[in-house]
Amino acid sequence: MGTIEIIEKKKNGEELTYNELKYIVEGYVRGDIPDYQMSAFLMSVFFAGMTKKETADMTKVMAESGDKLDLSEIKGIKVDKHSTGGIGDKTSLIVGPIAAACGLKIAKMSGRGLGYTGGTIDKLESIPGFRTDIDRSEFIKNVKDVGLSIIGQTDSLCPADKKIYSLRDVTATVNSIPLIASSIMSKKLIDGSDRILLDVKCGNGAFMKTLDEARMLAEEMVDIGENIGKHTVAMITDMNKPLGRNIGNSLEVIEALDVLDGKGPKDLKELCLTMAANMIVLGKKADSMDIAMIMAEGAIDDGSAKRKFAEMVKAQGGDQTYVYDTTKFKLSDKVIKVTSPDSGFIVSTNAEEIGRASVMLGAGREKKDSVIDPGAGIIMKKSFGEKVEKGEIIAEVYSSGIEKCQNAEVMLQKAIKIGAEKPAPCKLIYERIEHIR
Amino acid sequence: MGTIEIIEKKKNGEELTYNELKYIVEGYVRGDIPDYQMSAFLMSVFFAGMTKKETADMTKVMAESGDKLDLSEIKGIKVDKHSTGGIGDKTSLIVGPIAAACGLKIAKMSGRGLGYTGGTIDKLESIPGFRTDIDRSEFIKNVKDVGLSIIGQTDSLCPADKKIYSLRDVTATVNSIPLIASSIMSKKLIDGSDRILLDVKCGNGAFMKTLDEARMLAEEMVDIGENIGKHTVAMITDMNKPLGRNIGNSLEVIEALDVLDGKGPKDLKELCLTMAANMIVLGKKADSMDIAMIMAEGAIDDGSAKRKFAEMVKAQGGDQTYVYDTTKFKLSDKVIKVTSPDSGFIVSTNAEEIGRASVMLGAGREKKDSVIDPGAGIIMKKSFGEKVEKGEIIAEVYSSGIEKCQNAEVMLQKAIKIGAEKPAPCKLIYERIEHIR
Repeated sequence: MGTIEIIEKKKNGEELTYNELKYIVEGYVRGDIPDYQMSAFLMSVFFAGMTKKETADMTKVMAESGDKLDLSEIKGIKVDKHSTGGIGDKTSLIVGPIAAACGLKIAKMSGRGLGYTGGTIDKLESIPGFRTDIDRSEFIKNVKDVGLSIIGQTDSLCPADKKIYSLRDVTATVNSIPLIASSIMSKKLIDGSDRILLDVKCGNGAFMKTLDEARMLAEEMVDIGENIGKHTVAMITDMNKPLGRNIGNSLEVIEALDVLDGKGPKDLKELCLTMAANMIVLGKKADSMDIAMIMAEGAIDDGSAKRKFAEMVKAQGGDQTYVYDTTKFKLSDKVIKVTSPDSGFIVSTNAEEIGRASVMLGAGREKKDSVIDPGAGIIMKKSFGEKVEKGEIIAEVYSSGIEKCQNAEVMLQKAIKIGAEKPAPCKLIYERIEHIR
Repeated sequence: MGTIEIIEKKKNGEELTYNELKYIVEGYVRGDIPDYQMSAFLMSVFFAGMTKKETADMTKVMAESGDKLDLSEIKGIKVDKHSTGGIGDKTSLIVGPIAAACGLKIAKMSGRGLGYTGGTIDKLESIPGFRTDIDRSEFIKNVKDVGLSIIGQTDSLCPADKKIYSLRDVTATVNSIPLIASSIMSKKLIDGSDRILLDVKCGNGAFMKTLDEARMLAEEMVDIGENIGKHTVAMITDMNKPLGRNIGNSLEVIEALDVLDGKGPKDLKELCLTMAANMIVLGKKADSMDIAMIMAEGAIDDGSAKRKFAEMVKAQGGDQTYVYDTTKFKLSDKVIKVTSPDSGFIVSTNAEEIGRASVMLGAGREKKDSVIDPGAGIIMKKSFGEKVEKGEIIAEVYSSGIEKCQNAEVMLQKAIKIGAEKPAPCKLIYERIEHIR
């Protein structure tokens, strides 16, 4: 067995064995297989695909490349939630506290933003003092005491995914369903969770542009989940427009707190309640979705979800006063109000372009070592389907530099289309995929 | 324009522009584009293919990466001959002298062996003293004086092809028709020739396993040739068995000299005469193939072709006495005679496996820096379609080590199949492709 033979086999559409995938992944992590062979392999996977067995094996060998997080000290069913990434997706900040308030123990590792999508860790760090790099014992203690802790991924977990993802990013091999599925699920395999809720984003602001693609990815991941013994539910949700109205780190924490206060945009609130209810059922804190939904709504109405958020902030060193007074968050000082060029309705919003505009403003990373401006971002004053008058403000952009604001204004004018007729409403949740056992 | 965007575009099946191909190839030669991006690009070309325009543009940008060989001092139409590579393919050693004896000026740059196929330069270097690294002025002087000179490719010609070929070799991206076509034709574009005869090998010992593939490659290269203003004829010839009986460097020179003596295997002689006749017509030394065929046969019969070979050897510092007494070539001292396990007919010969056996014996290179043993190789005592008795010698293998001979014996026993019935004869020449202008 050699690297060239394995690439050749994949190229010819044959199924690779567990040992062949292990040879490639382990050899690459060790540095024995060079980048140029791995990138040829990844491109052949993009074209030739992988069978379900190969994707499951790929997930396993990636997971085996590093440590495992042991959460056995935490009693009960641990439910994890993962989103494939979208614009304005601050659901983890809302769903986590609701689920914890309903009795679940949420021990979550999250990523940083890369490309045009944001990351939960960056968002939390916009709360002064909030530490996302606490060690394992403190993490577990917080989950036990508070019911909720969110930390960053450590380097020792899944080094294969880290190294392969970096290479995919620069070799045009990101949008491969087996590679995305194995990347996400390899981290789920070792994060100590028992059950998984996946939020597969679908639309112009997601990796998966069509429902068919999103369904393929969702099915693939649900299959892997069952294959590795973790019951997995996937929801396919809309990303043809940003989720909620705020995009940017401080801005998204503010909006998440609005929802926990019972306010905030309807789409964001509805999605978060549905996801929290799914987690409550997965974690066996309710027998039916109806009951779970009532529990989730109750956790907002009685303020317990918000208190969980505040307790997590305190336990991780963050300034709790920001939670109760969101005017304390400093937004960037340069602002441009983007106005509508016409009267009519917002008939399309290119979420990917809006995401790119937010990165340009400083809310995300253009490169891995870019520094984030927590106060930068976009407030969508008008959203998909809404009526606007010519000259009316449709968005506000915040940045440290006026030029960046000007560039973002141009990008937003292109990304948001105004039409004469009100468009048909967009679905929020397309499908829910669960394999009944 | 950026590298990732260009890979993405090719991956999505779009046609790249001349400037995009130039960006990729030049950037790679300069070292600005890393191997891992180039290999992802090459794999995407393997899968997505290239249009005729892209392949022609790729050929041009590769040719533009280095120097051009100026042969304008040599009068007359310069005809070049190129084989895509096979086992026992010593045609250049025979066709060159015949064509030169018929009045053509043959200024040929050849390659070394790599993988399971041999190289003309390695074969010539088995003649003691023969120098293949003479400089341009000596090369041109020899062509003028003798009518024939064969030298190795210099590094300054087509550095892009050199660098890209090395990468393809280790990333399983060799067998791509546009990449093979542009690699071969980029060198033809700058080698000073006016017209080109291509020998596209087809069969189990060639890159192109089927006639359809061989035809696609041939058509592609003929198109490029016409596109770059060099009239090009392609012959598709058989490589389901080694050409002639001898495989190995000294062994192939001996067999080539046999043919120039009017002896040697029928298939090899017939192919060489047909190819020489095509070159004579391309070089306008005859009006018809019939007349050219008579001229080529005459050059063997009257000894003038052999004299050309001897003159070339002398001009390039080689020991001419070897040409007239081939028993002077020392074969390797370890020999095993491979015998037939059954009585019957040779019904199939896996030429690629036989080629690999010869490399293992020391006749070729397993890696780029492997040292060749000029005396190593294989004599096929029996060939495809011939009758054999059980225990009769079907091949002899020569090497410096007895273990290598034993390994080669095992490989040959697998590669050569004996059956009860005489197989249908195999065609020598499948097709001739020429675009009438």
